Amino acid sequence: MKDLAIVLVSGGMDSATVAAIAQTKHENLAFLHISYGQKTANRELACFKLLADDFKIPIKRRLIVNMSFLQEIGGNSLTDRNIEVAKFDGDIDNIPSSYVPFRNSHIISTAVSWAEVIGAQKIYIGANHEDSPGYPDCRPEYYEAFNQLINKGTKEGTIQVLTPIIAMTKEEIIQQAMSLKTPLEHTWSCYARSDKACGVCDSCALRLRAFKKLGLDDPIEYV
Amino acid sequence: MKDLAIVLVSGGMDSATVAAIAQTKHENLAFLHISYGQKTANRELACFKLLADDFKIPIKRRLIVNMSFLQEIGGNSLTDRNIEVAKFDGDIDNIPSSYVPFRNSHIISTAVSWAEVIGAQKIYIGANHEDSPGYPDCRPEYYEAFNQLINKGTKEGTIQVLTPIIAMTKEEIIQQAMSLKTPLEHTWSCYARSDKACGVCDSCALRLRAFKKLGLDDPIEYV
Repeated sequence: MKDLAIVLVSGGMDSATVAAIAQTKHENLAFLHISYGQKTANRELACFKLLADDFKIPIKRRLIVNMSFLQEIGGNSLTDRNIEVAKFDGDIDNIPSSYVPFRNSHIISTAVSWAEVIGAQKIYIGANHEDSPGYPDCRPEYYEAFNQLINKGTKEGTIQVLTPIIAMTKEEIIQQAMSLKTPLEHTWSCYARSDKACGVCDSCALRLRAFKKLGLDDPIEYV
Repeated sequence: MKDLAIVLVSGGMDSATVAAIAQTKHENLAFLHISYGQKTANRELACFKLLADDFKIPIKRRLIVNMSFLQEIGGNSLTDRNIEVAKFDGDIDNIPSSYVPFRNSHIISTAVSWAEVIGAQKIYIGANHEDSPGYPDCRPEYYEAFNQLINKGTKEGTIQVLTPIIAMTKEEIIQQAMSLKTPLEHTWSCYARSDKACGVCDSCALRLRAFKKLGLDDPIEYV
């Protein structure tokens, strides 16, 4: 298919914004959602479906992949029911307990496999370095290394991972989302709850702080 | 745990040999098996269990991961029931129809995630360049790129993927296996059948040719 790009759509604010950016650059988009047994999986999947409808993605260009094996491997607060999701401690340089070991490599590998089959040349991911420098797989040099790996490990070697918001602040992401009329009411960021956002986990804290700095209201509901 | 290494054990001859090599170098081994919806999955899993018993791997250091989503993505003859497994055409430089797009990246990513959780520093994989140069993810430069990715994308950045048989011929692998008393009767290589090996798929053909060159009998049963 001509000018086809895959967008990794978690259901969060960052990936929704990246989908809006990709839409300005490509004729056709395909949406990929990964569920990996995280506590808020159902709510994120619901947001994925709402966003795919908003972006008018045909059913055959939506793929939902279950990676619940990441839960069996464990070792983090997002998938391991024995580890509590921590409240934000104000230090974004530490590797947080919510770090799923090497998670993004699983996610991007899936996008690359699918890209080879459907003929997509670009993969968009909403990785963001500014707000999560503690996650090793959100660093720009990690994505450079991944593109090298794709170059060596695929048939054509030409597929590329793009990270258009990696250097933006959360405020800049919200502003970008607004200017592209991204439906942020159909996004979910909370790590801890699925009914209403908790407001106190790392992810909620960064999201709320950014809306507050901009003097805007977050359209989703908090406890 | 002190001096712990993970071995990727598919149930094939190559990975069994690599397990035997790893055993000479490390005090403790953990065995990881990936099932990805390939046609011979059950037989390979049975071989994994027999090999894990042979190598006396404790149950808690065995991990079996189901990646059947690779089947949904499709595009290859190993997982797609609509594509027939080809007979060996004598040309090992083509990318065969049995190529699962970017498959080894999924497999190694899983090993890296598990290594971070259990504290393993080395990951052994039975990739072999000589007999399958057509698979992009069996090339030495692919593994160099993967080690770079691990360096950038993990907490410590020190885990390493090792490919001890990558440059060996199939004959050399069999000789190495024999000298380390590897139980080759508990391995499975056929891509097409699970009861008796077909003898004519790429994988059977390369295995049989190597045993024949050495003047040895393959201990598994063929049709």
